[in-house]
Amino acid sequence: MHDAVSIITAKRSGQELSGSEIDWVIEAFTHGIVADEQMAALAMAIYFQGMSSAEVARWTAAMTQSGSRMDFSWLGRPTVDKHSTGGVGDKITLPLAPLVAACGAAVPQLSGRGLGHTGGTLDKLEAIPGWRADLSGEEIANILSNPQVGAVVCAAGPDLAPADRKLYALRDVTGTVESIPLIASSIMSKKIAEGTDALVLDVKVGRGAFMKDLASARELARTMVELGADAGVRTVALLTAMDAPLGRTAGNALEVREAIDVLAGGGPSDVVELTVTLAREMLTAAGIDGVDPADRLRDGSAMDRWRAMIAAQGGDPLGPLPVARHTDVVLAEFDGVITDIDAYEVGIAAWRLGAGRARQGEAVQAGAGVEWHVGVGEHVSIGTPLATLHTDTPDKLPAARAAVERAFTGSLEAVSPRQDVVIERIG
Amino acid sequence: MHDAVSIITAKRSGQELSGSEIDWVIEAFTHGIVADEQMAALAMAIYFQGMSSAEVARWTAAMTQSGSRMDFSWLGRPTVDKHSTGGVGDKITLPLAPLVAACGAAVPQLSGRGLGHTGGTLDKLEAIPGWRADLSGEEIANILSNPQVGAVVCAAGPDLAPADRKLYALRDVTGTVESIPLIASSIMSKKIAEGTDALVLDVKVGRGAFMKDLASARELARTMVELGADAGVRTVALLTAMDAPLGRTAGNALEVREAIDVLAGGGPSDVVELTVTLAREMLTAAGIDGVDPADRLRDGSAMDRWRAMIAAQGGDPLGPLPVARHTDVVLAEFDGVITDIDAYEVGIAAWRLGAGRARQGEAVQAGAGVEWHVGVGEHVSIGTPLATLHTDTPDKLPAARAAVERAFTGSLEAVSPRQDVVIERIG
Repeated sequence: MHDAVSIITAKRSGQELSGSEIDWVIEAFTHGIVADEQMAALAMAIYFQGMSSAEVARWTAAMTQSGSRMDFSWLGRPTVDKHSTGGVGDKITLPLAPLVAACGAAVPQLSGRGLGHTGGTLDKLEAIPGWRADLSGEEIANILSNPQVGAVVCAAGPDLAPADRKLYALRDVTGTVESIPLIASSIMSKKIAEGTDALVLDVKVGRGAFMKDLASARELARTMVELGADAGVRTVALLTAMDAPLGRTAGNALEVREAIDVLAGGGPSDVVELTVTLAREMLTAAGIDGVDPADRLRDGSAMDRWRAMIAAQGGDPLGPLPVARHTDVVLAEFDGVITDIDAYEVGIAAWRLGAGRARQGEAVQAGAGVEWHVGVGEHVSIGTPLATLHTDTPDKLPAARAAVERAFTGSLEAVSPRQDVVIERIG
Repeated sequence: MHDAVSIITAKRSGQELSGSEIDWVIEAFTHGIVADEQMAALAMAIYFQGMSSAEVARWTAAMTQSGSRMDFSWLGRPTVDKHSTGGVGDKITLPLAPLVAACGAAVPQLSGRGLGHTGGTLDKLEAIPGWRADLSGEEIANILSNPQVGAVVCAAGPDLAPADRKLYALRDVTGTVESIPLIASSIMSKKIAEGTDALVLDVKVGRGAFMKDLASARELARTMVELGADAGVRTVALLTAMDAPLGRTAGNALEVREAIDVLAGGGPSDVVELTVTLAREMLTAAGIDGVDPADRLRDGSAMDRWRAMIAAQGGDPLGPLPVARHTDVVLAEFDGVITDIDAYEVGIAAWRLGAGRARQGEAVQAGAGVEWHVGVGEHVSIGTPLATLHTDTPDKLPAARAAVERAFTGSLEAVSPRQDVVIERIG
């Protein structure tokens, strides 16, 4: 028989927890026997003392087993999912899920909402009038098995890794988010419970990401790839750059519009490049050869899947998207070349404008966000529009404008070419 | 304006908290605005990152100010108190408070109950039929100002450092007790709020104490002496040995009986020595010269004060003390000399027999405990009684017996003389 104080004290002292201690503490926490304050102290002790590979594997398995595990083996098609650790302007899931479905895989993507300066996929899709994030297990199965759709992006139900749901909410208010084993086990317990055969992880690294440096990002990626392999999910990770924001928009409806541009064969080159790269990784992980996702963007079949996917969840894929009531344009105050755009500052600006939330459960504005008109390496003159701010709450404009002004750096001289999006592959 | 997550994150990262952050977090915690899980995470971060002198002074002041501060300046006599960090068989407060009162100081001692293997002064006194720990402020004032009494040992009221009361209960269940700044601020916030002019700290060090090594005990003592000085309370600390238990008894009624032996001019020499040493320190700190407490033990005036003090709190000082329903004797299994008695094992045995509690709020047995018949350096033969176990719950006897058997170490050879009780003075 275990007790919470002994387990907290053991971890605090740097001892390795046994499998049965981990199973007990996760189950007892899920059922309220281990109190929130005890789990908060344990999470902080884990922040300082870390976890061994064996501990984090068992912790993840215990969180997966706290609920039910979905099973799509009856589909007769390989399932594959992608997870991003979160960046600014990261709308990749939106074009990617229908694109991979158009290539023959089934994509069961259970997603989250945004918190802080990085947006959430569900918040973005909810900008589409009528679109529903909450689906029953039967609805998910119907959409995935429908040969015209095959991709679903929806909220995780209450029975999917409930221990993680409870622990994540607790970490969020107790300063214990930034622990690599806790981040890795949180992501992977949900993805394993989701029942996907294969998984591609997009681990963001840089100013606009959780992981600011390559070493931490690499450690997080390796931990997650190992956890996936242990649980029988073929998992690879790409470390991708998040110093500058992705694409040209950060916000909800703004990013949906950009995703549609990509599906229509256009869109910013970095978004297209990352979408196609991740699609190729997903197809390889799913064991599907001989299909080039770039062709599926060109031939319109990815767009068809997008429309079917949105419609299957109650949205109108062709209707107008919401727009914000107020806009404000930030102009260049110099002649020269844009040498840098700071993703973190852009994310803070979009968040302040109403695209994100400070606390779980808050509403977000569908139309709010930042749209930038120039990228790194482009020339501007005094008075060139750098960015447009969108919001329903114009009192937030001055603070957002200040953040966007800080985000842009210029120089009179030409700059070296932009860094590659993909930094490293771990698989 | 502050928020809990920023404060937790700052401390977690090793930053020094500002005075206003500390004031805010203690007040917000007292009023339930900072949640228990947030304070638990902060306490664990403090465990790992420590606190600067400035931080721990402000933290202590904020806890003192969370309630009201008592004032005995109207008494016209100096007030002085003693606090022990807790040891096995540590009944010193019982003879000490009336002894110091008999020497002319007023002794306002607000005490606690025991938890784990160290007993609590209130638990011990509650073994006396009728004795009440809970007194009103008026009763405390009446007893202190009564020239026949002048000493009071009672529970801290709900308005004395309520932030500490809440934080202590939280630390107890979250594995965050063993942090020197948190221990020091907890003790000193109560002692400062108690309104004593002077304070003598008995910081126990050794196997049977919270502080197992001299360096930690010294750090705790120095921290507390500094906190006392900062708050205008003349404070000195003695580091005293707690490898072997004090005296010959560990339990509630058993220790009361031993305290009465000391007040009657007898009792174990280590208890007498520590009582007289602490009394001299208290009188010096209170500015009282020319009185030798050893004389007050001999002439019976300390015993008179004891009887008056017990009677003033509803107890019968001459009535019979409770005895346990079952006893069991542990016999020596060797011929030789006792070289060591492990205070921790004796404490665990007394706790298992029912003298202590595992959780706050549990009842303790008045008669339970361990009485040992031989001390370090004494000769035994096979069959000599080493100790008697007392309990109302005989199913606990085997585990307690095993602990007592582990506690005693013997040798065929004579041993070096017993270590001095007082190791070091910090003042």
